[in-house]
Amino acid sequence: MPTAETTPCIFVTQGSGNSYKPFLVSHQIAKRCDWVFVDVLGGQTRTAEFRAVNPRGQVPFMSRTQGEGLAESNAIAWYLAEGSALIPADPFERAQALQWMFWEQTCFEPNVSPARFYTAIVPQQKSAHEGEFPGWLSRGAAALAFLEDHLQRHDFLVGGAYSIADVAVYGYGHVAHEGGFRLEDHPRVTEWIERVQAQPGHVPMSMLAPGRA
Amino acid sequence: MPTAETTPCIFVTQGSGNSYKPFLVSHQIAKRCDWVFVDVLGGQTRTAEFRAVNPRGQVPFMSRTQGEGLAESNAIAWYLAEGSALIPADPFERAQALQWMFWEQTCFEPNVSPARFYTAIVPQQKSAHEGEFPGWLSRGAAALAFLEDHLQRHDFLVGGAYSIADVAVYGYGHVAHEGGFRLEDHPRVTEWIERVQAQPGHVPMSMLAPGRA
Repeated sequence: MPTAETTPCIFVTQGSGNSYKPFLVSHQIAKRCDWVFVDVLGGQTRTAEFRAVNPRGQVPFMSRTQGEGLAESNAIAWYLAEGSALIPADPFERAQALQWMFWEQTCFEPNVSPARFYTAIVPQQKSAHEGEFPGWLSRGAAALAFLEDHLQRHDFLVGGAYSIADVAVYGYGHVAHEGGFRLEDHPRVTEWIERVQAQPGHVPMSMLAPGRA
Repeated sequence: MPTAETTPCIFVTQGSGNSYKPFLVSHQIAKRCDWVFVDVLGGQTRTAEFRAVNPRGQVPFMSRTQGEGLAESNAIAWYLAEGSALIPADPFERAQALQWMFWEQTCFEPNVSPARFYTAIVPQQKSAHEGEFPGWLSRGAAALAFLEDHLQRHDFLVGGAYSIADVAVYGYGHVAHEGGFRLEDHPRVTEWIERVQAQPGHVPMSMLAPGRA
């Protein structure tokens, strides 16, 4: 079995909030990872070669042994962050961090991410998804309003301190405007984004690029 | 702050795979919880009274202080299971458990749960959702096939032993047939369901009922 010193190999794609989460964590805890860029738009995750690495056909994916790596952006980010201050030490706060991470994957990302993808990444495909946009936009706006409400009373998502929960929600939160969401109508979210960006070791999503990462 | 000895108060609803997850964990680790039954079908989660308890308006919800409890079935189950053998001790396996729990909430539950809800719980509302059924059934079937494939090579989801990941996927997995999914075509899933049911402290979902829980 690999030891804690093994350098994780993480398959990612440029411009993805999900791929960015483990990338941001690795910089903030100064953990070296090898980043392998996968051309999702070019169909690379659908190739037999990539399916042999990750049968789920998704990025991000952390490779350990074939078929037994780690999928799911928040699980990879959690694994990297284990033992660091990004994971709350208190069991209840640790569970609250997970609560926000499940919320992110069920209420936030499924709406903000596709709206952004078809608006900013592949706008030529947007017309084929017009019927889905009203749902994405209304549910995404409700999720943003929920986040705004929480941040009225809290500087960070959990326990008054920056944690992996902030990383998870920031992944797509800070680019929600690219999907047509009005961050300017959410002053507490906007301030929180600035607080996240001011954290030690922060790196912007643009750093997750071949030749830069 | 409550101590570890505080009895958690958990708001649940009968017949819900998500509410069942913390219920099953509590029995398997012999942790006493107070179960408060909420009539979701009768609109109780939309009342001002319930919103004061949980602004998210969802069950399950673990109450601590108003507005600062714990939502998300898998986060509540994780909190209850902390310190028990249900949480894998190895950090990589712990992250693999989270991976399955995120998969459950993004690929499995969003398809199996609504198909079951409108087929078995409120069939009188099924016709209003006919357009969504093909997507739920095809994505749910793909998720079941993925689970079947994993269980071809593993007795349990993570690390060769029963864990919180099994609890999470079992929640809706064992009632998937009520949503029109063919468990009889998935022999490894069926055997895994039997293995889960044979675990010490297992209680069936039917025990999650007023007067029984």
